[in-house]
Amino acid sequence: MTLFGYWRSSSTWRVRIVLEEKGLSFDTVPVNLLHGAHLDDTHRARNPLGQVPALAIDGGVTLIQSVAIMEYLDQVHPSPPMLPADAIGRAQVRSMVEVVNSGIQPLQNLAVLKAIEASGGDRVAWSTRWIGKGLAALEALASDDGPWLHNHGPTLAEACLIPQLYNARRFKMDLSAYPKLLACEAACMARPAFQRSHPDQQPDAVVA
Amino acid sequence: MTLFGYWRSSSTWRVRIVLEEKGLSFDTVPVNLLHGAHLDDTHRARNPLGQVPALAIDGGVTLIQSVAIMEYLDQVHPSPPMLPADAIGRAQVRSMVEVVNSGIQPLQNLAVLKAIEASGGDRVAWSTRWIGKGLAALEALASDDGPWLHNHGPTLAEACLIPQLYNARRFKMDLSAYPKLLACEAACMARPAFQRSHPDQQPDAVVA
Repeated sequence: MTLFGYWRSSSTWRVRIVLEEKGLSFDTVPVNLLHGAHLDDTHRARNPLGQVPALAIDGGVTLIQSVAIMEYLDQVHPSPPMLPADAIGRAQVRSMVEVVNSGIQPLQNLAVLKAIEASGGDRVAWSTRWIGKGLAALEALASDDGPWLHNHGPTLAEACLIPQLYNARRFKMDLSAYPKLLACEAACMARPAFQRSHPDQQPDAVVA
Repeated sequence: MTLFGYWRSSSTWRVRIVLEEKGLSFDTVPVNLLHGAHLDDTHRARNPLGQVPALAIDGGVTLIQSVAIMEYLDQVHPSPPMLPADAIGRAQVRSMVEVVNSGIQPLQNLAVLKAIEASGGDRVAWSTRWIGKGLAALEALASDDGPWLHNHGPTLAEACLIPQLYNARRFKMDLSAYPKLLACEAACMARPAFQRSHPDQQPDAVVA
């Protein structure tokens, strides 16, 4: 499999987490968002929306949208499972996935932040507003038992949470209001799969 | 089951489509977004993010996030199926679901449009930009065979597309550049389930 993505893209990191947790081997092909490589014809042939990640699988098929890719990987490579076995548990994990995937990330990705600045808005104030709202909801939804968001983990919800917390720190947000999320993050980052998938570990990383 | 939602909420409409296609009976409890009812304590106990829809199921459990709810309904009430049987097909349908769910809808919901206006932006220019970008991607992803977006239909992708086209028309967008999407819409709206689920048919509808 070949993962087309960008080291700092939170949606790309989600897919790396699932690939690494399941022990799957894959090649990485960087798509430089800062250079606009996601908008050229080559990448638009993979994803007409011009976003990362995209995952090329066997048979010439390329899958797009991180949630769809993660669900595919969990179905085809079921060990270890990253969704609960029961229908209600699956819905609860998927709802946390979507709090990040539709409730936070789309409002603070690069294309939207450029548009906010172009219309006179402030990218930090805009981003932190929506990230804070979403993380507060996740803190309320997270299991009180910890450290996982829902019973056993990590699940697809952790695969979404950890990259989103990384983004929050890029905006210098104070995360102390989210102790359950921070405990979950600590449990995740103790795992080799999360460590290997970290943006700084990617071949296209630009680390100061 | 009880569906907490708003007649014109596109995410609520998605869930109504799935409930109706599967012939499931449910009660509707309106949550008036214009009156801020989604932000009061009663609704925040259902969904800490303060969004609709929420679906109360047996056993005192309330599910949130339209995609998580639709996936739950498709698993627990599998007839008729609203995802393909094969893993790649499921991924392709889910990718179209997410083009709407994360690529379009979050950028043009009521809370975001209020924030755009407060920061000096124009809600129509903002909305039509992102809706147009997402619909163009969907037109590229949609099957050339038609009228369904992916082989047989309708699937969860149609449950997302049809409410999004309704929103596009509220912004008076010209949709003639999306002939495959319009053909899909015509096929969907010929079905009683889509007709019954239409916003204008809901108990809280305010039709001019």
